[in-house]
Amino acid sequence: MLIDGLQCGHFDRDAFNQLRQGDVGCVTVTLGFWEGPVETMDKLAHWYELARQNEDLVRVARSAADIRLAAAAERTALLLGAQNSELLAGRIGFVELFAAMGIRVIQLTYNNQNSLGGSCYETEDSGLARFGREVVHEMNRCGVLVDLSHVGNRTTLDAIRHSLKPVAVTHANADRLFPHKRNKTDDVLRALKENGGVIGCATYRNITGDHYCSSVDAWCEMVARTVDLIGIDHVAIGTDRSHNHTQADYDWMRKGRWTRGVDYGAGSPQRPGKVPPADWFAEVRGIGAIPAGLARAGFKPHEVEKIASGNWLRLYAEVFGG
Amino acid sequence: MLIDGLQCGHFDRDAFNQLRQGDVGCVTVTLGFWEGPVETMDKLAHWYELARQNEDLVRVARSAADIRLAAAAERTALLLGAQNSELLAGRIGFVELFAAMGIRVIQLTYNNQNSLGGSCYETEDSGLARFGREVVHEMNRCGVLVDLSHVGNRTTLDAIRHSLKPVAVTHANADRLFPHKRNKTDDVLRALKENGGVIGCATYRNITGDHYCSSVDAWCEMVARTVDLIGIDHVAIGTDRSHNHTQADYDWMRKGRWTRGVDYGAGSPQRPGKVPPADWFAEVRGIGAIPAGLARAGFKPHEVEKIASGNWLRLYAEVFGG
Repeated sequence: MLIDGLQCGHFDRDAFNQLRQGDVGCVTVTLGFWEGPVETMDKLAHWYELARQNEDLVRVARSAADIRLAAAAERTALLLGAQNSELLAGRIGFVELFAAMGIRVIQLTYNNQNSLGGSCYETEDSGLARFGREVVHEMNRCGVLVDLSHVGNRTTLDAIRHSLKPVAVTHANADRLFPHKRNKTDDVLRALKENGGVIGCATYRNITGDHYCSSVDAWCEMVARTVDLIGIDHVAIGTDRSHNHTQADYDWMRKGRWTRGVDYGAGSPQRPGKVPPADWFAEVRGIGAIPAGLARAGFKPHEVEKIASGNWLRLYAEVFGG
Repeated sequence: MLIDGLQCGHFDRDAFNQLRQGDVGCVTVTLGFWEGPVETMDKLAHWYELARQNEDLVRVARSAADIRLAAAAERTALLLGAQNSELLAGRIGFVELFAAMGIRVIQLTYNNQNSLGGSCYETEDSGLARFGREVVHEMNRCGVLVDLSHVGNRTTLDAIRHSLKPVAVTHANADRLFPHKRNKTDDVLRALKENGGVIGCATYRNITGDHYCSSVDAWCEMVARTVDLIGIDHVAIGTDRSHNHTQADYDWMRKGRWTRGVDYGAGSPQRPGKVPPADWFAEVRGIGAIPAGLARAGFKPHEVEKIASGNWLRLYAEVFGG
């Protein structure tokens, strides 16, 4: 069984079938990027309906136990996540309410600074702001995983130190292996390890690079080098795979409602639009090639199991509680 | 133990203490009247915080089992209710989400017609509208009690017939005993009985009348006459007691944001403002006098128990599920 720490886009029955074919036992799906509380509730309602319509393939999970039960029933568990904290609308009390509605992962910031802290793309990262400190502790209390993938390094370090529970970088890579604002520097990875956290290694071409996208073995070599940096207990999968994305989706992700100008997100003027998935990941079911790739990269079976699912399951059990 | 099907207003520690002194094991509190989804979430956050601050006295309940556990722990169980359906903002999917956030009772309409149906104060009651039919079945599915107290008679009859579960009139009286637009006609009470539903007899002076407010024995006589009309298994308590209400609260309840004019709600030009509680109910703890009053009115102990708590508990178990 594989666990993928982050995917996004418009999931459909074909996507769910491919997840099953790829032996994905659990995936965190993205409910939104800039959406406020009511918009996020619209997404939640959509996901509950989608899960009911495909109940032979998937089910929404709220705990590590739910994931194991789904696996036993040959269903892919869906963890509901948000890639931004706009759903809170400045209310500390909304953490508890969105947790009750099933949200299990919240990224503190997406690409822009917000009331919680600074993003990886800001010129100046404020560090974790007053409200951000409140929200991290409230997420700890309510069993919601703190996701720091798009968060700036200073805010990330603050959040790791401030959190009373392990945190996650659900979808990013080691900056040392592929330098990019979205990737994590050595000091962040060190702090993540000390915190007991987990990083999900990404396959998104803009933050992974063409070399590691060229074959599953090349990508597993990147995973192996990440393990060299922070240890076998802290590295997992977080592909950042998208489903059925169009240019309108990229415009929303990158520009939201905050600019009339141009923003490239993780892209660049040279790579402004949609980039192809990793060569070995043209079809979503291709994710199923990872465990054999990890074995070829030299990992022993119990190590493959940790990277493929065990590390996420351990973190989820610690963070989500019963 | 008593169960009160509806109270409203600004609860505080004094109110909770009085509920304990009055042996109230469960009360449905009113989160709002005209509030949309985000405003209702603000109220939910407030109630969860208030319950935590007074956890030695109260706890939020989601099931009949929760109420029994609270009683065993000498806490008053709070059921979270809304007196209107504006929180749904026209979304069928929000029933499930507000249920997940802990809402257990929703009144289909407050004093005005809405997208679900007609209210008791409209000149013309449309009956249960298209969206109303969807919402009633969704509330059935999600374990939310359909409350018809302020709902017009035609819509009420439609909802009773359409519902797949027993419904409630949480706070109203028999129109035959005190004629008022807010009270329920014989045909409604008959349908309620056939549905297995429950009416909570009110103490609010404007819909109860001065006579039945004059003593607990007079009020229990009204309860006895209501039992004569629809039987011992369908009558309970729903005081409609308010806490710390000011004129601003009455303005909000009656006028919301829908009129620049004057609206008297259950009052009248002759009784425009706040009316005194029933003479025997000057203090909230006075509710504790009801069981002895019911016994004096001729009810046997097992009948007193049904009216005081058993009928609500039976209905809650059927509607809320596990």
